[in-house]
Amino acid sequence: MDCIRGALGRADALVITGGLGPTTDDLTREAIAQALGVPLQHHPELEDELRAWFASRNYVPSETIMRQAYLPQGAAALPNSNGTAPGVHAQTADGKLIFAVPGVPREMRAMIERSVIPALLERLEGERQIIVSRVLRTFGIGESALAEPLEDILTTATNPTVAPLIFGNTEVHLRLTAKARDEAEAKILLDGMEAQIRARAGEYIFGVDDETMASVVLQMLRERGLLLVVAESLTGGVLSALLTDVPGASESFVGGIIAYADWIKVAVLDVPVEYLDGAAGAVNAQTAAAMAEGLDVEMDMDGGDDFIGLSTTGEAGPESQSGAPVGTVFIGLHHAGQTQTFERSFSGDRDTIRKRTALAALDVLRRYLQNQPVGEGSK
Amino acid sequence: MDCIRGALGRADALVITGGLGPTTDDLTREAIAQALGVPLQHHPELEDELRAWFASRNYVPSETIMRQAYLPQGAAALPNSNGTAPGVHAQTADGKLIFAVPGVPREMRAMIERSVIPALLERLEGERQIIVSRVLRTFGIGESALAEPLEDILTTATNPTVAPLIFGNTEVHLRLTAKARDEAEAKILLDGMEAQIRARAGEYIFGVDDETMASVVLQMLRERGLLLVVAESLTGGVLSALLTDVPGASESFVGGIIAYADWIKVAVLDVPVEYLDGAAGAVNAQTAAAMAEGLDVEMDMDGGDDFIGLSTTGEAGPESQSGAPVGTVFIGLHHAGQTQTFERSFSGDRDTIRKRTALAALDVLRRYLQNQPVGEGSK
Repeated sequence: MDCIRGALGRADALVITGGLGPTTDDLTREAIAQALGVPLQHHPELEDELRAWFASRNYVPSETIMRQAYLPQGAAALPNSNGTAPGVHAQTADGKLIFAVPGVPREMRAMIERSVIPALLERLEGERQIIVSRVLRTFGIGESALAEPLEDILTTATNPTVAPLIFGNTEVHLRLTAKARDEAEAKILLDGMEAQIRARAGEYIFGVDDETMASVVLQMLRERGLLLVVAESLTGGVLSALLTDVPGASESFVGGIIAYADWIKVAVLDVPVEYLDGAAGAVNAQTAAAMAEGLDVEMDMDGGDDFIGLSTTGEAGPESQSGAPVGTVFIGLHHAGQTQTFERSFSGDRDTIRKRTALAALDVLRRYLQNQPVGEGSK
Repeated sequence: MDCIRGALGRADALVITGGLGPTTDDLTREAIAQALGVPLQHHPELEDELRAWFASRNYVPSETIMRQAYLPQGAAALPNSNGTAPGVHAQTADGKLIFAVPGVPREMRAMIERSVIPALLERLEGERQIIVSRVLRTFGIGESALAEPLEDILTTATNPTVAPLIFGNTEVHLRLTAKARDEAEAKILLDGMEAQIRARAGEYIFGVDDETMASVVLQMLRERGLLLVVAESLTGGVLSALLTDVPGASESFVGGIIAYADWIKVAVLDVPVEYLDGAAGAVNAQTAAAMAEGLDVEMDMDGGDDFIGLSTTGEAGPESQSGAPVGTVFIGLHHAGQTQTFERSFSGDRDTIRKRTALAALDVLRRYLQNQPVGEGSK
């Protein structure tokens, strides 16, 4: 309650996430009621909706879930399209807004987009100024190295502003934020700034906003009528999962082999066993090449020019199992009878190395596809 | 700065994460200095350490990174074992503590464990009371259904307290928190509460604290001398990645086939093509069974009794590609010449359905292994 009152002293609207669940440590409804100086009120229509939600799924509701049928007196419920807890939309005596949404991200996002933002926009009608952001996503360059050619933009640009941030320990994002009267004006400002940044650092920008490295690569494969198969060693499923995370991946991603154990590389991908006998085990260029080529037979690619084989092999750590230095990885790319390999060296822990390797493999493919024609036969 | 001063009004120690990076929107050092009413001071020894860090990696440091060589006057630097930004340890005139650590999770966690917690414990010396938490992790039951048989514990237990929370939209965790004079006393309290909870809901508890479903299953496989291979359709790598996320997975996880496209199931796993011809495409029990059995030949398992094949097939959505209702999944488990299949129905979006399916497959395997003897020949 003190937090809510303190925040109301600094802002005209609050958005609170979490604490709307059914258990006794979910206290947001109570805190809002106390901050407003009103009691909690039971809403029979909300209880009916809750019972109907459970009935439609053949679940028996626990009685504790009925705590979600209460609201601070005077507040309205916000519908929850992805769960049971209704949100709360309340107003103070002096017209400040309080929104409470669930903490669970899927439920929170849906309620913010469908209820909270429209309510805020309605409040702003007439004094409209919108804020629009755009994120340029980069891979393969560190935050301070990326900031260097952009130093003057980062320190002096005021509209849009540009803020760098590290994402997932693997990407560096540049968040452009514009203030304007409407979407069209904001787009002009953002387009102009994006063009400036691309002129200086465009090589590293693989996507914008929600585009992931995988979604961008799948789009490029689709435009060129190409299908992708993978052979994963150290990445052990991470590369495949990045691709299949994208709805519609099946249009271009066929599947692959997780050759986690070395003998699987030999038995299933026909990697010559002598390639694994050196000081670095399976962590070398010829193994990466043989894995990518082995997909041809194994996955029934029949040497077709519309298939690309992509492989990863390397040492993720924490101790070196292979004999190769931790962080050493090799990527293989096989297409139209040609095989290329790429060596990378990543720092970080085991998870970071695996994730960076998967993204690096996709980035290698992205840069290769940029030079492949979009042509006849493409879907 | 206002936030820092406000927080100091409510607490004896603050921990701030983020804002210690090299770019101009990293303002935590400045905010602490302002809150304390002191200037920022350059530390030549920190600058030397930064230059040495870059030199040892053959990187050229940008000059902007040298902003990390400044501290509020009177503050000490906290070493960063996983990055360049030193943390900050400052004290107000009336003895309150301010710690600033990086926002990047790996760097934050290491600094909290190695510097902040020891400093706090040192401050508490003599009035020592420690707080110890333990998390019981469950799968396969919703939050309110789990809370029901535990209602009295959740509402009345004071030491330890028990708090339920949803984790990753897939698990429900019970966080037990005990206050005691030392670790041994805390352990007794936590053990007692854990036993009470297991007596009522133990079936759903698969692990404790950092144990993941995958790490628990890999441990059980290791104890029984069994090796695991997987065939993934809708999960598309997520199941393999959960397993290979665990260091040492290679002791028990050999690899698998990502049979994302239906023709891969036929061509590589020998699933009879007529199994895929029905109204639900590849989403049926016999396809799951055939995929798990197909691993035998494909992954060179040679019908060995020490191999287990685990498969997933289903419809993740958002629209139904297969003809089966979105959320319908089948899991196949093949071991020692026997095959079992399991049908599940999950709600949620595409990502949630894939993730829940991967965990459900591991949970099926976990429950199966509980009935398999730990015996001779186990590693």
